[in-house]
Amino acid sequence: MRLAECRLAIIGLGLMGGSLAEALGGRCQLLIGADRDPETRAEALRLGLIDEGVGQVGEALAGADLVVLAIPVRASLEMMAGMGEQLPAPKRLLDLGSTKVQVMEAMAALPAETDPVGGHPMCGKEEAGLASRDPALFKGSQFVLTPLERTRPETLGLVEELVEAVGGRALKMSAEDHDRLVAVSSHLPYLTSAALVRRAQRLHGKDPRLTQLMASGFRDSTRLAASDPTMMLDILLTNRPNLLRELRELQSDLAELERRLSRQEEDLALELSKLAATKRAWTQDGHERKDG
Amino acid sequence: MRLAECRLAIIGLGLMGGSLAEALGGRCQLLIGADRDPETRAEALRLGLIDEGVGQVGEALAGADLVVLAIPVRASLEMMAGMGEQLPAPKRLLDLGSTKVQVMEAMAALPAETDPVGGHPMCGKEEAGLASRDPALFKGSQFVLTPLERTRPETLGLVEELVEAVGGRALKMSAEDHDRLVAVSSHLPYLTSAALVRRAQRLHGKDPRLTQLMASGFRDSTRLAASDPTMMLDILLTNRPNLLRELRELQSDLAELERRLSRQEEDLALELSKLAATKRAWTQDGHERKDG
Repeated sequence: MRLAECRLAIIGLGLMGGSLAEALGGRCQLLIGADRDPETRAEALRLGLIDEGVGQVGEALAGADLVVLAIPVRASLEMMAGMGEQLPAPKRLLDLGSTKVQVMEAMAALPAETDPVGGHPMCGKEEAGLASRDPALFKGSQFVLTPLERTRPETLGLVEELVEAVGGRALKMSAEDHDRLVAVSSHLPYLTSAALVRRAQRLHGKDPRLTQLMASGFRDSTRLAASDPTMMLDILLTNRPNLLRELRELQSDLAELERRLSRQEEDLALELSKLAATKRAWTQDGHERKDG
Repeated sequence: MRLAECRLAIIGLGLMGGSLAEALGGRCQLLIGADRDPETRAEALRLGLIDEGVGQVGEALAGADLVVLAIPVRASLEMMAGMGEQLPAPKRLLDLGSTKVQVMEAMAALPAETDPVGGHPMCGKEEAGLASRDPALFKGSQFVLTPLERTRPETLGLVEELVEAVGGRALKMSAEDHDRLVAVSSHLPYLTSAALVRRAQRLHGKDPRLTQLMASGFRDSTRLAASDPTMMLDILLTNRPNLLRELRELQSDLAELERRLSRQEEDLALELSKLAATKRAWTQDGHERKDG
C-alpha cells in the first residue's frame, strides 16, 4: 500500500500529531484525527489539517489502514493493552513514543490482525498542544524505526514512505539499543537540566539577584527542564533501568571533575581541552541536529 | 573624565577585547590595543578597531587614562602583581574577568596611584579570538561592577559611561556575592555540560550510533562544553571553593531525582512539574538573556 491510497488515523492532535498532520498535507487518501478534546478536533478541522475528527478512539482504530499513536508513552501502552478486547485491533500501527522497549513488548502482544512498528522521531520542542505544531518539525531529523520480526515489509515500506514524506530520515535499530542510546543523548540531558533548575531554585530563594545573572549559558543548559512534565514522566518511567544507571554515571563524572578541580590542575586542564574538542567535533560533524 | 576625552587601552584583542573595541566605535579620544600577537594587532588596525597597536603591555599601561584587562583571569592576576614593579601602574583599571574575589584582592593590593574597579560583562560565546568579535555582544547584557571602597566615584562614573556606550546594563554588587551567584548561573552549567560530554564520549566509544541520536536537546545542554578551555580553567580555579560546593549540591540534586525515579512516581511527577513551572517563569520574565 502506498501513502496516497492510505486512510491514515492520528491518535492525539498535540505537538507531534498536529505537526505530522500538517506535514503530511493531503498526501494520504484520508486523514482521520482522534482527540478527546472537541475544541482541538474543531480547530484541526477548521485549519484543514484533518479530513475527519473523531472523539472515540475506536472509530479511528477500526476505520484506518494505518494508525499513528501520538500520545504519551504510557497512554499508548494502556491503549494497546485494550486492542482486540475493549478496542478494535487496527490493521497497521505506528507509535511515536520516545522510549521503545516497553512499547515493543506491548506491540508484540497485539492480536495477529495488527501489523505493528515502533517509531521515534528525534525532534520536538518544549511547548505542547496543537497550537505549537510545526509542519517542518521532522525535516532533517532522524526517525528511528523499531520493527518487530512479525512486521511485514509492506507495512515497514509504508511507514518509511511516511517518514520520507515529512522530511525525516528513517533509521532502523533494536528497541534495546534505542533506549540505551537516547538515555544519554536525550533523557539524561533533561534530568541534568532539571537538576540545575532545582539547585538554582534553592539559591534563588535565598538571593533573588540570581535571575539577573542568568545569561544564555544557563538558558540553554536548562531549556529541556521546561518540557511537558506528563510526557517526560512517561519517558523516564518507561526507561527507568537505563536512567537509574545513567544518573549514577553522571554523578561519578561530576565527582571526577570535582576531584580534578580540588587538586590536579594539569589533569583538569587536559580533561577540559579533550571535552571541548569532542564537543566541537560533534558540532562540526553536524551530528547534533535541530530540535529533539 | 568623560569617555570622549579618554585615552583607553584594551589589553588583549580576543573575543571580549575585540568586541569592546568595535562596540566603542570611536567614542574615546584614543583607543590603544595591546596584544602579544603581531598579526592580531595588524588585523585590528586594518579593521579600524583601534588607533594604535602595541606589543609591550607597559606602553599601554603607562599611556592610557583607563586600561581594560580583557585577558584570562589568571593572566590578569599575574599582570596586576607586576604593576608598580616590573610594569607601570595605570591611572585607572577595569577588568572583564568572569570571577571577582581573587581579582578584587589583587586590585586592593595595587599601588595607590591606580584607581581600580572590577567588571564582568555577562555575555560571551564559545568561539575565541578577534575574528569571533561582535560589536553587539554587550547589548542588553548585565555588566556587573565590583568597585572597591577606594574606587573614586569619577572612575566608577567613567566605567558606567563605557558600559552604557556598549549597550550593557551596569549592576553593582560585592565580589563575594558575584562569585557565589555565577557559580550557579554560569560555571555549574559549564561543568554539567562537560560531564554530559564526558559520559557521552564513553558511550560513543562503545556505540558510535550515539551521535546519530543527538538532537537539539543534547546540542543545547552541552553547548558550554565547547568553551575555550584556557578561559574556563582560569574561571574554575579562581572560583574553586564555590564550585566544589556546587558540584556536591548538584550531585545531591541528581541523587534526589534518582531516588524519586526509583520509587516514588507521585513525588517525581510533582517535582518535574514544579521545575518546569520555575523554568518557564524565568524564561517569561526574560531573566535569561542572550549570550553568556
